[in-house]
Amino acid sequence: MPIGKKSWIIPDAYIPPKSSGSLESHEAICVLNRNQETVHLDIHLYFEDREPIKNIKYEIHGNRTKHLKTDSLHIDGESVPKGVPYAIEVTSDLPIVVQYSRLDTTQSENALMTTLAYATD
Amino acid sequence: MPIGKKSWIIPDAYIPPKSSGSLESHEAICVLNRNQETVHLDIHLYFEDREPIKNIKYEIHGNRTKHLKTDSLHIDGESVPKGVPYAIEVTSDLPIVVQYSRLDTTQSENALMTTLAYATD
Amino acid sequence: MPIGKKSWIIPDAYIPPKSSGSLESHEAICVLNRNQETVHLDIHLYFEDREPIKNIKYEIHGNRTKHLKTDSLHIDGESVPKGVPYAIEVTSDLPIVVQYSRLDTTQSENALMTTLAYATD
Amino acid sequence: MPIGKKSWIIPDAYIPPKSSGSLESHEAICVLNRNQETVHLDIHLYFEDREPIKNIKYEIHGNRTKHLKTDSLHIDGESVPKGVPYAIEVTSDLPIVVQYSRLDTTQSENALMTTLAYATD
Repeated sequence: MPIGKKSWIIPDAYIPPKSSGSLESHEAICVLNRNQETVHLDIHLYFEDREPIKNIKYEIHGNRTKHLKTDSLHIDGESVPKGVPYAIEVTSDLPIVVQYSRLDTTQSENALMTTLAYATD
Repeated sequence: MPIGKKSWIIPDAYIPPKSSGSLESHEAICVLNRNQETVHLDIHLYFEDREPIKNIKYEIHGNRTKHLKTDSLHIDGESVPKGVPYAIEVTSDLPIVVQYSRLDTTQSENALMTTLAYATD
Repeated sequence: MPIGKKSWIIPDAYIPPKSSGSLESHEAICVLNRNQETVHLDIHLYFEDREPIKNIKYEIHGNRTKHLKTDSLHIDGESVPKGVPYAIEVTSDLPIVVQYSRLDTTQSENALMTTLAYATD
Repeated sequence: MPIGKKSWIIPDAYIPPKSSGSLESHEAICVLNRNQETVHLDIHLYFEDREPIKNIKYEIHGNRTKHLKTDSLHIDGESVPKGVPYAIEVTSDLPIVVQYSRLDTTQSENALMTTLAYATD
């Protein structure tokens, strides 16, 4: 029986513009693909005051996880800007489970936050 | 197909009264409007020992996100008091997705927390 | 239409035994009662290696929130021990919404975490 | 009435490789068994670039919680590697509720994050 859903929403995405200490500020879209087959992701980014960036593609093999850093996402020369509030939509051709986490090292001590994404079908 | 729900609850809201370091303590109600049309929000605030503040209005354009800082909410000269526990209800005329995040800089190093809000229809 | 559920589970509860800096380590069970009527809570605590503490009572007026600190819970001379892993079950006679948050000040800089509780009927 | 589900997914698992300050970095799978009977867990670990580690067994007595540290999980001489992104699946023969938490003490001040796991039947 497949585990998960095919559409996931993360309203609060943000790459902190500053880092200090030993780790770099970053976010990750953490995905589990519990299917036998490779899953194909379609990632869309929504902003406060400009058009969305759509259809960033990513593949994850069967029975694998991927903790996908958002600063690696790019399409047609566009990537995720730092210090800008945005939201993420992940759609897929097979059910997956998606969790979002952020590490903020603006100050030298770390701050962490995480939540499951919002799932629909 | 519309994504999300029209009623969202955040039981644990609180603006830390103190800030230090380079960032200010704040909370945000993070909304994704995945509809084509503008969505109209109606925000209600509940307290421990006084009547609610109701019907704060806000609009978000279609295919846009908004990370709405709670210290910007106000109606009839009332705004969100700092250092007071409260709860938030967000209702809308179209389905949306809502996540709540808080940055606490009471101490000079940051602390972060986040969760999806509780959704009903 | 009533908002919420009548049974809520928080598997990861823990009062950090140490505090430092300007704030004290604590947890809160944050409840919104969106009904007109007063809601009556029945709170049960589960441990790793002893019998549960059951039927701690609490009331919240209609259209009010309460951010209930767990170190204030007590019954028959028993209260929540510090530094001990436990879990919380909140049941109620009317639907409510429950979020759990912890502030850990073991070190002088704050750490925060939060999540909605798990809801059933 | 049983409380919870029999299959739980945590996409973002990770044991920070470094610790400092007075506490050690760790993660916990926090489970509440609200049944009268002992529950039998079957835990599977998924990675980014190798085969899963499957069928790690664990038991929790009735009406008990367990905050299970992931560095204690092992089978056939394999355990959870530090500093490696992975995902967790917890299945059980009775309904349970699962929450995931991480304490990161890479820097001397603590960072915390938590979320309910994703539940299916």
